Amino acid sequence: MNNLLIAQSGGPSAAINATVAGAVEYGLISGKIDNIYGAVHGIKGVLEDHLISLDTRLCSPEQMTLLCHTPAAALGSCRYKLKDFEQDESDFERILQVFRKHGIRYFIYIGGNDSMDTVLKLSQYCKAKGIDDLFVMGAPKTIDNDLTQTDHCPGFGSAAKYIATTFAEIERDRSVYDDKNVTVVEVMGRDAGWLTAASAMAKGNGSQGPDLLYLCEQPLEPADFVRQVQDKLSQKTSVMVAVSEGIKNKEGAYLSEECQSGAVDNFGHQYIAGAGRVLESLVRAEVGCKVRAIELNLMQRCSSRIASATDLYESRMLGMKALTRALEGASGEMSCIKRISNDPYGVRYETADIRRIANQVKTVPTEWILPNGEGVAPELHDYLYPLIQGEIPLSFEHGIPAHIKLF
Amino acid sequence: MNNLLIAQSGGPSAAINATVAGAVEYGLISGKIDNIYGAVHGIKGVLEDHLISLDTRLCSPEQMTLLCHTPAAALGSCRYKLKDFEQDESDFERILQVFRKHGIRYFIYIGGNDSMDTVLKLSQYCKAKGIDDLFVMGAPKTIDNDLTQTDHCPGFGSAAKYIATTFAEIERDRSVYDDKNVTVVEVMGRDAGWLTAASAMAKGNGSQGPDLLYLCEQPLEPADFVRQVQDKLSQKTSVMVAVSEGIKNKEGAYLSEECQSGAVDNFGHQYIAGAGRVLESLVRAEVGCKVRAIELNLMQRCSSRIASATDLYESRMLGMKALTRALEGASGEMSCIKRISNDPYGVRYETADIRRIANQVKTVPTEWILPNGEGVAPELHDYLYPLIQGEIPLSFEHGIPAHIKLF
Repeated sequence: MNNLLIAQSGGPSAAINATVAGAVEYGLISGKIDNIYGAVHGIKGVLEDHLISLDTRLCSPEQMTLLCHTPAAALGSCRYKLKDFEQDESDFERILQVFRKHGIRYFIYIGGNDSMDTVLKLSQYCKAKGIDDLFVMGAPKTIDNDLTQTDHCPGFGSAAKYIATTFAEIERDRSVYDDKNVTVVEVMGRDAGWLTAASAMAKGNGSQGPDLLYLCEQPLEPADFVRQVQDKLSQKTSVMVAVSEGIKNKEGAYLSEECQSGAVDNFGHQYIAGAGRVLESLVRAEVGCKVRAIELNLMQRCSSRIASATDLYESRMLGMKALTRALEGASGEMSCIKRISNDPYGVRYETADIRRIANQVKTVPTEWILPNGEGVAPELHDYLYPLIQGEIPLSFEHGIPAHIKLF
Repeated sequence: MNNLLIAQSGGPSAAINATVAGAVEYGLISGKIDNIYGAVHGIKGVLEDHLISLDTRLCSPEQMTLLCHTPAAALGSCRYKLKDFEQDESDFERILQVFRKHGIRYFIYIGGNDSMDTVLKLSQYCKAKGIDDLFVMGAPKTIDNDLTQTDHCPGFGSAAKYIATTFAEIERDRSVYDDKNVTVVEVMGRDAGWLTAASAMAKGNGSQGPDLLYLCEQPLEPADFVRQVQDKLSQKTSVMVAVSEGIKNKEGAYLSEECQSGAVDNFGHQYIAGAGRVLESLVRAEVGCKVRAIELNLMQRCSSRIASATDLYESRMLGMKALTRALEGASGEMSCIKRISNDPYGVRYETADIRRIANQVKTVPTEWILPNGEGVAPELHDYLYPLIQGEIPLSFEHGIPAHIKLF
């Protein structure tokens, strides 16, 4: 049997299901795939032999469209890190056993940096063991936009569109009163400030956008922050601040409160939240005006109602591209976007060696960030602009956007 | 001159501008209005003689549509409380002076309970002084849905649709992993739990909706909460909790942390935030599983991209109704919705005496709330259902929803 298995991993996004749709679609027309399966909860679902049939579940255009428009990960997700196979082969042996049982020859794993670590290890294991009939491919997905080799990542454009829209809406809300006020909006982003930078796109509809914009690529000293807020307040009534959750001071310590707890996830990342609340307290104590902290929280990654049409289209194409290359005999690669031009916007779909991607982080070039929180450079604006274009016509059920449920 | 003045007050919403549009539209066709003005920042704008012309600004269908689709308050807002005129007439004399200067004969004030206090006092002042050529009308607006005499309030349906949608999206997000987790979502609502109840409508698209739902109408004991969460966790992996910001314990004390600070706004309301975080801490300490608190914050009142078409339509009609009655010679009334039937949904537009509305609060009937956080009774579901129906086709500029700016 020449069967295809698809799985999703890492944090949910509004676009990750479109990549499943793309891979399934190409699987259905390739003429080289017998059956298409999905593993429930990523690689954990493989280890637990929890597979579901996808070609029978996704056979109408309505279901396919609904899958693309459903947020989060329709196949479930996990944050499971495979051990190095030189030290412990048990997981790899189990994965191969499940693959053989179901006739899996092509495996597409959709996710971010940590998920690409799984693609790397599994493809390297196959190579080391001389297994030449299993093709393991990655497809990118991370709202953080921090994968290397690809111009940008599925999920980012939709999150960016949500963030820009929400900033424009909050700006409307906060500017209705005529008394001085500061709003600090905390945006996701541990190591890369791409999402925070997207807030600058709020200017697209005539809004002013954030007055101060602090990306985690550059340190922020509390005293500088207070002075910059005071300066803005001397010029206008309502001041909007965008800040990355992962913002640090010059000593490299997180500004957020919770970082002290030392709690870490399975990949060793510290749990961070609260940079916005720290800055809120600073304004209250040092500036003394009305202040509110807002955390965009999970909404920024799961709001499919403001998804970017560009993002969803490209996500689908990357799922197709990953399978195309797997059918050509490639393994240990990730499908990527190469930007040809900004205006008119044009891209090509390629693949890159997974060894150059797994466990790497692509941050915002510091020359694209203006000093003193003054915003983004034109290059960053031009980079972001095409990614948030286009809207998705959602279908609704009883007043709520319709979603598909696969398991 | 027979001029019309419109102003907005209180918290922003996604629907308050549609009421302005309705009043302007009826003003333009009534044949009885010479000029239409807006006061910037509510009654404060009147006191400061800060009026703008609206009939010249809103003369195309595009501008009118854009006004209806723009969130927050396009004329600005305030939280200014008029003193009792028996004690201090200065504000009233100043208001009359500005009205006379601009030939204002009809004044429509759009807002919630506190704003209706302004309508009450101003209409009573006119009556006491024998002023019979000034007609002061209220139009309802509050996402809290807590005004009496009207079946429901403009702004509520859109906020309810946002909340239901967001719960469905967060549920998708939180159910991707297979480890036990609890999500506590804090919803606005100081004295009335209508908005929190709206989270139950997430079930509309096949989602499960919140597993536990705590409205501020009923006290919540921390020990009961912990037991109910543990009970739900024994049945399923991901537990969703909806809680009103104004939730109290049996002693009547707010569960939220900040209530201790004692800070109050101009109307004497305590500043409340943090009920969700208190419950999050309880789960972390007493249950011990993964837990996340989410505050829907300003997004629930300013997200026009998920506005309810029913809400925006009715908001417009209520602006028209208020002016219609003013032109008939009424003063000291508020336009209201009377529900005729749930299915098919039908309403009538009426007005009610402002004395029965100002400074009153309509809470959720306790018989509409199931005990032990188990959700909403069928009566409440049927009440909420029509209010979130229908979607608005927004126009976009550069990837962001288009907004109008009036000042």
